[in-house]
Amino acid sequence: MRDLLPYYLQTRLFTINLCAPLQLEDYIPQPVDFASPPKWHLAHSTWFFEEMILKKFYPEYQIFHPDFSFLFNSYYQTIGKRAVRNQRGLITRPSVEEVYKYRKYVDAKIEELLTDEDNLEIRELIILGINHEQQHQELLITDLKHTFSFNPINPVYKENFDLINQDNEETGWLEIEKGLYQIGFEGEGFHFDNEVGRHQVYLNDFQISKALVTNGEYIEFIEAGGYQNFKFWLDEGWSWVEENKIDAPLYWENIDGVWHQYTLGGLKIVEKDKILAHISFYEAQAFANWKGCRLPTEFEWEAASAKFKWGKRWEWTYSAYLPYPKFEIAEGAVGEYNGKFMISQMVLRGASTATPKGHERSTYRNFFHPKYRWQLTGIRLAK
Amino acid sequence: MRDLLPYYLQTRLFTINLCAPLQLEDYIPQPVDFASPPKWHLAHSTWFFEEMILKKFYPEYQIFHPDFSFLFNSYYQTIGKRAVRNQRGLITRPSVEEVYKYRKYVDAKIEELLTDEDNLEIRELIILGINHEQQHQELLITDLKHTFSFNPINPVYKENFDLINQDNEETGWLEIEKGLYQIGFEGEGFHFDNEVGRHQVYLNDFQISKALVTNGEYIEFIEAGGYQNFKFWLDEGWSWVEENKIDAPLYWENIDGVWHQYTLGGLKIVEKDKILAHISFYEAQAFANWKGCRLPTEFEWEAASAKFKWGKRWEWTYSAYLPYPKFEIAEGAVGEYNGKFMISQMVLRGASTATPKGHERSTYRNFFHPKYRWQLTGIRLAK
Amino acid sequence: MRDLLPYYLQTRLFTINLCAPLQLEDYIPQPVDFASPPKWHLAHSTWFFEEMILKKFYPEYQIFHPDFSFLFNSYYQTIGKRAVRNQRGLITRPSVEEVYKYRKYVDAKIEELLTDEDNLEIRELIILGINHEQQHQELLITDLKHTFSFNPINPVYKENFDLINQDNEETGWLEIEKGLYQIGFEGEGFHFDNEVGRHQVYLNDFQISKALVTNGEYIEFIEAGGYQNFKFWLDEGWSWVEENKIDAPLYWENIDGVWHQYTLGGLKIVEKDKILAHISFYEAQAFANWKGCRLPTEFEWEAASAKFKWGKRWEWTYSAYLPYPKFEIAEGAVGEYNGKFMISQMVLRGASTATPKGHERSTYRNFFHPKYRWQLTGIRLAK
Amino acid sequence: MRDLLPYYLQTRLFTINLCAPLQLEDYIPQPVDFASPPKWHLAHSTWFFEEMILKKFYPEYQIFHPDFSFLFNSYYQTIGKRAVRNQRGLITRPSVEEVYKYRKYVDAKIEELLTDEDNLEIRELIILGINHEQQHQELLITDLKHTFSFNPINPVYKENFDLINQDNEETGWLEIEKGLYQIGFEGEGFHFDNEVGRHQVYLNDFQISKALVTNGEYIEFIEAGGYQNFKFWLDEGWSWVEENKIDAPLYWENIDGVWHQYTLGGLKIVEKDKILAHISFYEAQAFANWKGCRLPTEFEWEAASAKFKWGKRWEWTYSAYLPYPKFEIAEGAVGEYNGKFMISQMVLRGASTATPKGHERSTYRNFFHPKYRWQLTGIRLAK
Repeated sequence: MRDLLPYYLQTRLFTINLCAPLQLEDYIPQPVDFASPPKWHLAHSTWFFEEMILKKFYPEYQIFHPDFSFLFNSYYQTIGKRAVRNQRGLITRPSVEEVYKYRKYVDAKIEELLTDEDNLEIRELIILGINHEQQHQELLITDLKHTFSFNPINPVYKENFDLINQDNEETGWLEIEKGLYQIGFEGEGFHFDNEVGRHQVYLNDFQISKALVTNGEYIEFIEAGGYQNFKFWLDEGWSWVEENKIDAPLYWENIDGVWHQYTLGGLKIVEKDKILAHISFYEAQAFANWKGCRLPTEFEWEAASAKFKWGKRWEWTYSAYLPYPKFEIAEGAVGEYNGKFMISQMVLRGASTATPKGHERSTYRNFFHPKYRWQLTGIRLAK
Repeated sequence: MRDLLPYYLQTRLFTINLCAPLQLEDYIPQPVDFASPPKWHLAHSTWFFEEMILKKFYPEYQIFHPDFSFLFNSYYQTIGKRAVRNQRGLITRPSVEEVYKYRKYVDAKIEELLTDEDNLEIRELIILGINHEQQHQELLITDLKHTFSFNPINPVYKENFDLINQDNEETGWLEIEKGLYQIGFEGEGFHFDNEVGRHQVYLNDFQISKALVTNGEYIEFIEAGGYQNFKFWLDEGWSWVEENKIDAPLYWENIDGVWHQYTLGGLKIVEKDKILAHISFYEAQAFANWKGCRLPTEFEWEAASAKFKWGKRWEWTYSAYLPYPKFEIAEGAVGEYNGKFMISQMVLRGASTATPKGHERSTYRNFFHPKYRWQLTGIRLAK
Repeated sequence: MRDLLPYYLQTRLFTINLCAPLQLEDYIPQPVDFASPPKWHLAHSTWFFEEMILKKFYPEYQIFHPDFSFLFNSYYQTIGKRAVRNQRGLITRPSVEEVYKYRKYVDAKIEELLTDEDNLEIRELIILGINHEQQHQELLITDLKHTFSFNPINPVYKENFDLINQDNEETGWLEIEKGLYQIGFEGEGFHFDNEVGRHQVYLNDFQISKALVTNGEYIEFIEAGGYQNFKFWLDEGWSWVEENKIDAPLYWENIDGVWHQYTLGGLKIVEKDKILAHISFYEAQAFANWKGCRLPTEFEWEAASAKFKWGKRWEWTYSAYLPYPKFEIAEGAVGEYNGKFMISQMVLRGASTATPKGHERSTYRNFFHPKYRWQLTGIRLAK
Repeated sequence: MRDLLPYYLQTRLFTINLCAPLQLEDYIPQPVDFASPPKWHLAHSTWFFEEMILKKFYPEYQIFHPDFSFLFNSYYQTIGKRAVRNQRGLITRPSVEEVYKYRKYVDAKIEELLTDEDNLEIRELIILGINHEQQHQELLITDLKHTFSFNPINPVYKENFDLINQDNEETGWLEIEKGLYQIGFEGEGFHFDNEVGRHQVYLNDFQISKALVTNGEYIEFIEAGGYQNFKFWLDEGWSWVEENKIDAPLYWENIDGVWHQYTLGGLKIVEKDKILAHISFYEAQAFANWKGCRLPTEFEWEAASAKFKWGKRWEWTYSAYLPYPKFEIAEGAVGEYNGKFMISQMVLRGASTATPKGHERSTYRNFFHPKYRWQLTGIRLAK
């Protein structure tokens, strides 16, 4: 399985490179229960290789440290003291240095394993582990942005580091004809369990925009009183606006009449022609409503995705995250991967500027609760 | 429009008959924000006719009382003091007697209007008002059951009144072949905006049970430790179980090893061969999982619905409540009817023993948040 | 004990007279957990006589109904279904009529008992029961006002019924000299356990106002930005203001620049020369601070109380509700009366316009959490 | 003012020595809003010297960095982005290293200032700053213990570091006679504003224990069902027990029938003859009740304090934290020190094993809300 080694090592290195601009202090805090500290991402993605592969396939594997299995396992549940999901920011020990040692230790063992003859089961799990780590790379950087945003001095991760300022390369509407479309993953490459099971879906005629919504278009919505008029909003979205006093995308701040936004390069002026990010499903849906359009379904998106450029934002669809007809839950811990989240979440399609290269895929189904905004979420309109 | 008169009057009378066994005190309390007091249902269903029809079409209509428009309008929003949704149980004045006078006043005017020549717009609104009132009839009785259930002395609404104890008339599995199916309402009769827009949906082969799950089958799930084993549950469902310490359907109580349930006829022993009710979507889904089956989608249900007997329970489907492809929101207050709730809710199909006759329909889409249990919700399995 | 009969009957009648203006609907709702419905007050004050006296001293007493002991006992705790304190508004059955029957039944038995020869234990319990009912009379009317205040149509309990509009009869400051003062109840009359144990307290020289603060003086505080300046407030008070967006006394509403307040006679203009009511301890303390004064301690109040006129408002003191040096908890349920509340509450002294005649006493210690405002609370300044 | 220099420097050094065993990661997290991270304590105690002294008295003082004034000011309130009290654990930048530089910078300037001729105002503020830092030393170590306690691997701050395992040196009861006692600080030394204003308090005869309650005595209370019997508890205490499922002191854990407790030296067995710590006022009061005793008032404690050994625990008294008769609030920010907290808190007297030497004083009034347990709180009985 030597062919996997470069892929494995590059992925592992990319995670470390993401952390290069960090000060040691930055590895620790967890601002909210849905985000995790860099230290935890570093350790958990490593734990995955140890738990799912080394413990089963490496001969007489000695675990690095029993505490690590306990602390960095995202599934484990026990009575009494627990490595509780929303207390990851309190686990100062083991230290960051020890976590890096853990990574090296596991990398060395995986490297050895990859010099062995091919074993399909190991191969698939290595690739799953790599994809899992790539998911955590995206989370690491968006979680970090969220933590930094609570600091009133607007910390700089890296000068001119910019996940935000992209232009549209195309404009106009794409027309798609009604008919039966094949939806879902099929073929040889890697895929998650939630996208598998290619199946037919009947679609009516629809149009989908080639461009994503820009900051400028969204500012028009704000200035037209979009956040003050309940008729554009879903009932639940309107409650969310009122309870949280929402009046702009996440990280936006109006300073003397000029919209600014916190970015990982510091506080910047919002540029009107760039693509919008950090909005909730509720906001996406209200904006679409105000425009006299709608959001596409995930099936429309997938059916049309070969014909427009995507990969800059995770795009909210008006599809709930539900199982495909042929969905099956795998045995054991791997089976917990996706199925148990199939309720009360909306599907996002595409990929974002924080998505590692090679990780994007037109059948990929991302999903979040409609209120979340800390990912690089955007809007593509349909009608 | 004289032909509508009996239909109108019967519907109005049925609401009053539902309240016949009530003491005056029972008209008042609101136990939770999602349920309303009988007094409010009586007034609000009347307000609908006044607001949507009489104020527009009855010549020089004098409203019964300006306070009523304010207090019994479910949509109205104003600054400062408000007729707040979760404070309906605090509005002791106007009295119940005055609400009955309000009903008579409005009925008299509607009766006059119905002696006029046909007017399609009025006709459609009258029928909408009737269907609206029928919806509130079902809520009135299920809300009342919920209020009564908080009283430790288990009040009796009517001896032997039984929404609960039904048998299955069929057993076994129905096989449905893959193909394109027509979904949604089409034709002349009454329908809501959310079910309109007949469209094609491609379905794979599936099987659907002719029987609903019984109390006895569900007790097996309980006794097998269903509520203690997280692997059967959606992640959100498991949190709901743990936070609310759920270990049985709503209204069930284990007294010395025997399952009892509160009914509108008082506290009764749970009979094993009767059809289960009062479970959340989470419980329905966990039960299906434990059985090695799944819940049907709303499209599967509709496609198969001509071939099994239904109408005893509202049946949870594994479909989120989302707009049909041709869904459009009507202008004005009528447009608020359904569309704004199309998020974070699951579709229920069928009808229940509390559904007024003539109100059930195979294309009817009921919807609730997955946690709710106070409706007569049940389980039909698919695979 | 025949001498007690008129006192007993007058007290019981007064409670019923308080309810005379009510519609049946008004007996039911409980708007918040700290207030109770009229029906509950009627039943609970009766339960006290049944539980504490009739069950022990009336030969072969047959309780009126076992459910009543359970439902109207304010102390009782049990596993499973409970007569929960904040669900008193959901107990529609037994009916109001049955509660009145309960009162008559218990009154008849007590009347018989009072024809017997004197028994000191019974005598003391009868007097305790009467004082207990008088406490509930004051709560009944203030709780009712609170319930009515949630109704946007400002219900009228009785035209011109006015707990609010009183004038000061005196002005100026009283000077009290330093020295040892006797504090606490001593003598023959009725008293609660929390005021007993006459003891010496050393006081420094102080001055206390002969007048209570008026609405007009308080409006000056509002207009001076009192609710916007944290420096007048206790830290906890400031959080309370911010979290609850408090900007005026309870029941006040500014309509086009004119302060109005909800009263049991309907919505009225706030008259500036009348005595202020319905403010929290936090507001009282902030107002005193703004005035360059302070609130008196309960010992100062008691020491000076013979020299000024009181009885219009419950007056907040800057004394926490703590046991007197000789405080002892009685055995049994009677012992739960006061002692268990001696934490996190502030003492109020005086009596209010809602206090039944004969129930006021200069040693009486009322107590509430500093945030509460639904009693007729006011301010007397000291320095 | 050279005489102050050693005192100043020793205090500053002691803070740094407290942090010597820390890893950099340990400086960051804030587990709850009432505790702060070591980094914040280091910076805030320094900010106090900068803000209160250097900015006013050091000629042409250049502040170290404007962000520091904003981030490490415990009082500052501003609109919009704020250095919010419960988000101190998210402020990773400025780094720990920069905070140490800040300390050195301020120390150098203060050192210069102290070589000047005497200035009474500066002298008093220096001494206030030193005492303020000493308060934060105690908080630093107790806050750290709280943070570490959330880590399931029981981190060791320092082997055998022991704030917990002390013996009583005396036993038996002390009898104090009734009479007038002088209470409050008088004299030359340092004191806080809340203890000043010596005044007379009349006390009745009482007895106070020479020993503090031990772990063993408290285990008897636990084993006697103390946490299960509501009659020992204040009403608010009982709610606290039930809502939080409290069944032992903070940091205690029963492992196979043996009580263990987390300490800064790791997890240890609870030794029965050592002095109890980490209990709430509610627990202290319930224990006293169970013992047939009571807690002393703060006046009794102070009157008797010369006659028993104290200084191992902060001792809960049954006195609310209220102003002394001559209490006055100073002008400006210094005036916010204590007065604004005089509500809903109970007084603790004594000092603990975490109190810096020279910081204890018999007139010192510590205060916390009755629910808090993370300080070294204990019980001394009275009767």
